[in-house]
Parts: sequence; C-alpha cells; structure tokens
Amino acid sequence: MSGKLSVVGIGPGAQGWVTPEATAAIAEAEDIYGYGNYLERVSLSPRQRTHKSDNREELDRARAALARAAEGARVVVVSSGDPGVFAMAAAIFEAIEAGPQDWRRLDVEILPGLSAMQAAAARLGAPLGHDFCAISLSDNLKPWTIIAQRLEAAVEGDFVIALYNPASRARPDRIHDAFALLKARKAPETPVAFARAVGRVDEAITLTTLGQADPGLADMATLVIVGSSKTRLVERGDARPWMLTPRAYGGGA
Amino acid sequence: MSGKLSVVGIGPGAQGWVTPEATAAIAEAEDIYGYGNYLERVSLSPRQRTHKSDNREELDRARAALARAAEGARVVVVSSGDPGVFAMAAAIFEAIEAGPQDWRRLDVEILPGLSAMQAAAARLGAPLGHDFCAISLSDNLKPWTIIAQRLEAAVEGDFVIALYNPASRARPDRIHDAFALLKARKAPETPVAFARAVGRVDEAITLTTLGQADPGLADMATLVIVGSSKTRLVERGDARPWMLTPRAYGGGA
Repeated sequence: MSGKLSVVGIGPGAQGWVTPEATAAIAEAEDIYGYGNYLERVSLSPRQRTHKSDNREELDRARAALARAAEGARVVVVSSGDPGVFAMAAAIFEAIEAGPQDWRRLDVEILPGLSAMQAAAARLGAPLGHDFCAISLSDNLKPWTIIAQRLEAAVEGDFVIALYNPASRARPDRIHDAFALLKARKAPETPVAFARAVGRVDEAITLTTLGQADPGLADMATLVIVGSSKTRLVERGDARPWMLTPRAYGGGA
Repeated sequence: MSGKLSVVGIGPGAQGWVTPEATAAIAEAEDIYGYGNYLERVSLSPRQRTHKSDNREELDRARAALARAAEGARVVVVSSGDPGVFAMAAAIFEAIEAGPQDWRRLDVEILPGLSAMQAAAARLGAPLGHDFCAISLSDNLKPWTIIAQRLEAAVEGDFVIALYNPASRARPDRIHDAFALLKARKAPETPVAFARAVGRVDEAITLTTLGQADPGLADMATLVIVGSSKTRLVERGDARPWMLTPRAYGGGA
C-alpha cells in the first residue's frame, strides 16, 4: 500500500498554463491514465506506462487507476482543465466510495489546473469580475429539469453564467433549450461569448449578444459565457471589445 | 504607444501553482505593480521597478499601471489567485473605460491563475464536482440585498457555493448574516469547509456541517465552500474525510 494516485489538471490547452506541480507529478509517475487526446499533450518517457481510454469512460478509468495505485505504483490520472471542475476528481472519489475498503487508505492527491472558463475569461477581458456560476449541460447523469431549475436560479440571482459541455453527442439539443430559456428571461442585449479551444491552435472566440446568439456555434470544445445584467462591453476601435462585469453592483462607482 | 500591460495571476500561494506563462511575464516586465504581500511572492531583479500599494486601492493601482504602459513600458500588475475572479482584471477594464481614449489602444493581456476555490477544492476532494457558484461577500461595492438575493438563488438552484472574502474589515458581520440565511434554508447536515491560506505555510482546513459551522472561523484569507444537497463525505479512517459532490444528480449512477 505504498502507491500513490495523483489526479493532475493540465489546464485547457496551452503549455504555458501547465503548473510546475503538474509537470513534476507527471514526470514522477510510473503509470499514466487519461483520455487519449489529453495524453498527447504531456511529455512522457519510454519507461512510463500509458493507459489511454475513451473520454466517456470516467468511472472505469478511475477504477483502473485506483487498482494500480493499490498495487503500489505511482499513478497519475491526467485531466484537462481543473480535475475538480466537471472532470476526473469526482469520478475518483465516487470510485473510492463504491470500491474495496483499502482504497480509502490510498494516498490520493488532486493537483488543480486552470479551468476552461478562466482561459475564456482571460481572452475576453473580465467577464467573471463579479459573482458567477458554472453549469454543465452535457453529462448523461443530470435530468433537464435540474438544468432548467439551475438556469432559472442563475437568472434570478443575476449571476454571470459559464456553460460547460454545451453540445455533447448524447444531448445536442440542450444548448438550444438552454438559450431558449435564457432568451425568455434575460435582456436581448446581454453580452454572450462563445470561446472555443482557448489556448490551442484552433482557438476561436465569438462575442455577441443573447438576442443575436446562435447556440449552434457551440461544439464540445466550447465554453459559453452569458453576462449578468451589469456585464457590458468596453470598445477598443477595430479590435474585439473587452467583456467586463464590473466590481460594483448597483449605485457604487 | 509600444507599451504593454499584463495582468498576471500568481495563484493562491504555492510556488508550484504559478504558471510558466506568469513567471515569464513577470521576468520580462520593467514595472511591476501590486499589493505588497503579493510582490513578496515573486522573484524580481534589481533592474525591475516595483510599485507597491495597499490591497484596497485597486482602481488607483490600475490607473497608475495603465499610465505607465501608455508611456511605453512593459508593465505587469500582479494579482493573487486568478485576476479574472474577484481580482484585478475588472479594475483594469473599469479604469480603461473611464480613462483617456488612448488607453483603449493599449496592448492589454490577462494571464489566468488558479483561484482560491480551486486550491481549496483540491485539498478537500471534489466539492466542486457538480454545478457551483462563486459569491464575494467582502467588497464595499455591493449592497447586502444583492448578496442575500444571490444566496437565496444559489439555494434555490441547489448550487455548491464558494464564498470569497468572507470577512473583510469593513464588513465583518456579512459572513454571520450569510450563514444565518443559509442555515434557515438548507439542511443542517450539509457539508461546509473553511479553507484558510491554502498553499501557504499557515494553511488550515476545517470540515464541518452547516448546523455546526462557526462563521467566526472565516478570516480574510479564508475561502468557504458550502455543499449542495448532494454533497457528501467519503470517510477514510483517521484522516479527514473527502468532500464529494458527485457527478450524478437524481437517479443517475
């Protein structure tokens, strides 16, 4: 039982966003588990064993990694973004909870990484400058009624809304349903951004308004940010305006 | 007008969490602005000019940094955590919006960093494994009615709630008011964590329940996480249990 399991976030894509802590953990690992596309983004040595899996098999991957750590290996599970935000950390602890008792005594650590909404926000200006929420649309584990209830609550609280996984293969219509709900409840001039693959070569950002937004722009690599009633644009000539949610709410300066 | 302004996030405290992108930007800067405590956390060379300021003077610091960049200097504003999350990015764009027209043509970039809730979540397990919101309690720019409305909406949507700046000097009672509101609306067994100074030498984590929580535990360096109705604990013998918000909501596996 001298093994160790590190769940390592490598951020949304750019190499400059991988923390030194994450890089060191990957370098020390004997066995590395992850979705194939993520493993291609990390530097590995020939002595390291890689275990690629499909992106949808999170729980299977968690169980396999835990079993290997229980055998005494130094194991890393690579996660895109932050493993704690709609990623592998929850799957690991669910697997521990349902697994053999001795998995609870394993040395498990979560190494945080930048999440997609932070990369998107950085490119856009300061859309998350005030209270915000993050809602995932894609998984198969959540009924639409819960998503609708959360979107309504997010409007009620006037949060900035970050939508993760807006267009999964299993649920391609959810982003359209989500936008229909938001359009019925928020001002049409609310700034909306579609930030695709931020930090990667195919990065693409579209800044628009809720009234004009085409939800079809969102694919599986897109993070959507919908402003609060205070979110506004700061024009800068020919360049794309900055998206700003100011620190003040109400009368303050 | 060849200057450049980079707003650089250095994360919540640990050196291993500072991204390579942030480290490179700081190394290249001629002028570095920031709160004194943050500047002490970065490596500087004697040729670099530092401009320390009080933590509360965000807008003044933003204006000074923009004016220096407009003179042609390479300027960095250092921000703890992620500059986009309750930090310097919004202040910069507010200053641009209210400032001279030529500031809008400046080369401004935001370099994201890990935010306090991510560091706290990593230590705790996976409390942010499902939809969540982030609410700041401390600034002087937001009336209590707005905070109360957002807390109520967060309960209504059953979000996990991350509370930033729970105990500012100007508003020491807000965390008590917030907990009173939450205790009246959520189950007393809801897991609650107080994560103080995560990644620094004085890191301290307290895991408790809403019914038993003492809001007085929160100081200015504390991040509070309040679970959703699904957040639960995964026991692990003598060690602190893991805090888990599972990926599934409702009937799912």
